[in-house]
Amino acid sequence: MAGGTEEQIRRAAVHLFATRGFHATGIRQLAEAVGINSSTLYHYMGTKEDLLFAITQDSFRRLIDAADRLSPDLNPQVRLCGLVYLHVWSHATHPEETAVVDNELRSLDGDRLAQAVELRDRYEGLWASVIADGCASGTFAVQDPRIARIALLQMCSGVAGWYSASGKTSLRDLTTTYAQMALSLLSCGRDYRTIERLLDDLDLQPVVAAAWPESAI
Amino acid sequence: MAGGTEEQIRRAAVHLFATRGFHATGIRQLAEAVGINSSTLYHYMGTKEDLLFAITQDSFRRLIDAADRLSPDLNPQVRLCGLVYLHVWSHATHPEETAVVDNELRSLDGDRLAQAVELRDRYEGLWASVIADGCASGTFAVQDPRIARIALLQMCSGVAGWYSASGKTSLRDLTTTYAQMALSLLSCGRDYRTIERLLDDLDLQPVVAAAWPESAI
Repeated sequence: MAGGTEEQIRRAAVHLFATRGFHATGIRQLAEAVGINSSTLYHYMGTKEDLLFAITQDSFRRLIDAADRLSPDLNPQVRLCGLVYLHVWSHATHPEETAVVDNELRSLDGDRLAQAVELRDRYEGLWASVIADGCASGTFAVQDPRIARIALLQMCSGVAGWYSASGKTSLRDLTTTYAQMALSLLSCGRDYRTIERLLDDLDLQPVVAAAWPESAI
Repeated sequence: MAGGTEEQIRRAAVHLFATRGFHATGIRQLAEAVGINSSTLYHYMGTKEDLLFAITQDSFRRLIDAADRLSPDLNPQVRLCGLVYLHVWSHATHPEETAVVDNELRSLDGDRLAQAVELRDRYEGLWASVIADGCASGTFAVQDPRIARIALLQMCSGVAGWYSASGKTSLRDLTTTYAQMALSLLSCGRDYRTIERLLDDLDLQPVVAAAWPESAI
């Protein structure tokens, strides 16, 4: 029962923060969305800031957990496709949660902002390291690896803003298309079928099922 | 004097909508930021929705105006570099305004949302047409031109969220780097010096000076 209520509060917070913004969401509005009163909400989840902090920590930890399951023995090209797959998959299937993390991190204060930024930097560090390895081995070529990493992450995060599973593009096509565009941007163009096979061989379904167990796929 | 007050209100609205969100910004807060009362603000600018609508229309019109000055006789590779330059330049130099347009369009209602979406579609249509021309002539190659257009626009818009003119990357390097990444993503890789020369030849400073006359460059 407690777990159920907590999960309901968390979902309502994600939805309201994503659609109206963190600052525009009142604690009373949040409580009403779940059908409880404000003090019951506080008992379960603490303040609005506590909720935002929990949502961002959880989101980054899942991404890092999933990315950490990619073997460091894989070559940079394959690891990059894996990172793109996980990032695009999570943003396409959890658009409101990822939008809150991407847009409302700035609404955290002091120590909590520092903790969230530390997790974000750890996650982005995984991307930086793959791009650096690929540039060092001559697989990738870019003018500025830092800007390339930022551009890749922003284009992949962007799917949260437009992708619909009921549209004409399947999640499989979406992730493959983004992996192909990411490799091309890094001057490592590969044809679509090659990327499709590469992602099939990586077999990331068990990885996303472990990191996002509530999402049936 | 009236123009001055209007401009001050517009700037305060852009700042508050960008940093706190449209729904979290009260009309009284906006009036206080400019040092006037709510009814004076209403006299000059109408409602909060009127302000958001004016900001989005103005932003899209400048982008379209600038993009329309690129000659249709240019080849797709050059036109694409020009579009990337204008988009990245405007987002890097007007980060709060472009963030409001990118994030708060959904806060417009009914007819106004339709008008803003129509302008956005017209602007994105310019990108779609260049990408289609490049694919038709064999200059570009992508799996899905629509997704490539969305990914390019999102990665270019992203500079509003991180770029700082006081950092180590100049606006010239930023725009050249993004143009190079955009061409690579479209399987049309060119070296950095080639893009630099191409943008120098295009000479877009007069174009941005005409579309954004208040920005000294």
